[in-house]
Amino acid sequence: MTFYQKLRLAQRKNDTLLCVGLDPEPSRIPRSLRRRGNPALEFNRRIIEATEDLVCAYKLNISFYESSGARGWDTVHRTLASIPRGLVTIGDGKRGDIRNSSEKQAGLFCDDWKFSASTVNPWMGFDSVDPFIRRKDRGAFILAVTSNPGSRDFQHLKVRGRPLYEHVIAAAKKWNLRRNIGLVVGATRPADLRRVRSLVPEMPLLIPGIGAQKGDLAATVRFGCDPKGEMAVINVGRAILYASGGADFAEKARTAALAYRDRINAYRDKYFG
Amino acid sequence: MTFYQKLRLAQRKNDTLLCVGLDPEPSRIPRSLRRRGNPALEFNRRIIEATEDLVCAYKLNISFYESSGARGWDTVHRTLASIPRGLVTIGDGKRGDIRNSSEKQAGLFCDDWKFSASTVNPWMGFDSVDPFIRRKDRGAFILAVTSNPGSRDFQHLKVRGRPLYEHVIAAAKKWNLRRNIGLVVGATRPADLRRVRSLVPEMPLLIPGIGAQKGDLAATVRFGCDPKGEMAVINVGRAILYASGGADFAEKARTAALAYRDRINAYRDKYFG
Repeated sequence: MTFYQKLRLAQRKNDTLLCVGLDPEPSRIPRSLRRRGNPALEFNRRIIEATEDLVCAYKLNISFYESSGARGWDTVHRTLASIPRGLVTIGDGKRGDIRNSSEKQAGLFCDDWKFSASTVNPWMGFDSVDPFIRRKDRGAFILAVTSNPGSRDFQHLKVRGRPLYEHVIAAAKKWNLRRNIGLVVGATRPADLRRVRSLVPEMPLLIPGIGAQKGDLAATVRFGCDPKGEMAVINVGRAILYASGGADFAEKARTAALAYRDRINAYRDKYFG
Repeated sequence: MTFYQKLRLAQRKNDTLLCVGLDPEPSRIPRSLRRRGNPALEFNRRIIEATEDLVCAYKLNISFYESSGARGWDTVHRTLASIPRGLVTIGDGKRGDIRNSSEKQAGLFCDDWKFSASTVNPWMGFDSVDPFIRRKDRGAFILAVTSNPGSRDFQHLKVRGRPLYEHVIAAAKKWNLRRNIGLVVGATRPADLRRVRSLVPEMPLLIPGIGAQKGDLAATVRFGCDPKGEMAVINVGRAILYASGGADFAEKARTAALAYRDRINAYRDKYFG
């Protein structure tokens, strides 16, 4: 099964475009879990259990795992083991290096951890991305337009009259021989999202920036989806994980995830129904 | 002590610009070490012991450590513990993310592992780099012109008549309030190196691409150094680590490192003497 097929199936199975970002912040994990041997793992498991029928994907930002040392590596493995098989898993590491080193990175993300897809930084060009797209059943989301303020510093500079990120997208289209490339496009920039979707009508878009980063949900659905109202992967992290800081965190996370899924689906009905 | 001061002292102490890239490839570690509990650590220790008076810095490409799982994290720690205090240590992770996540990354590289400097990918702009430059005694080498073929894909695109990497360098100069920013510039592109040095006469340049990647050593020294013949950090990895595949690997690594240091110093005498 190609990566595109896997993603489409996952979205249809639960009728959802929602992705939950599993980025456990030690200081925000509810007290009731902090005495456990591995609070981050326990937290992730409870969040997964509470939301797995509402999402198409889970995204793990590796920064949150590697920063807790050797145990973090294991927490990634064990978190992935708790995610139902049919769902997409995204290793958000924003990696990329010379080929020799990128191959090591892709080995970790694709073969060892076995993420369905990884995020990749395009700055170093083709040979830095290639190791992540050589397995046809594994995808790579290339950072095109990120959701942070610094995205303005370089991604929008004009090259031959078009923003630099469009050149990255043109390269991504050219490299997409196995139909396993997607793009990261922040929800905080609806005009960019619209432009990107017009350039790649069918490519999966991983869209961060909803929730804590205050992206526009209606525009995200309207401009982020493919013509069938699919292939947008809308990531929400903190607004779901920390919907409550108390012992009811999992229940409240479910309520928040359900609300996001339903609002997203209402917009899908409106724009693609 | 600022990062610039630390680097200059390390270069003067051993009269050297050489940096050894400690990127242990499991399949290339000599058989005599493979039965040890942690062959990569043992290999690194032996290489450090054999070269520590010939180098100003050691660079660890994190890809080679994280790919060996939880143990890799510990190997970074223990390798760093074997490096003499006065030398610079570079965590080559090419990280960068939205501020919230970059802070996690900088915490790992600067506070937990305690690298003197880290490599940082500029693609996501200021808030992705800032967490790495907030400690005045810790440096960041920003990827300006990398040594790989893919560096041509985006880094050289023309923006207002100048290659994109010059815009990254202009930003790096602006961000350099604590005098702790350096640039990565590949040795495989001497003309670019010359151009970069003319733009930042005094910034440290981390220069990969010598050895296995076949960069030009004379041009690297000539164009990579500051006006005093210093502040170029010339990285050699595989050509030193695997100078011999046998039990004499450490001795042969020393011979190779000595030859690099001496050739570099001969060029320093020639161009800056």
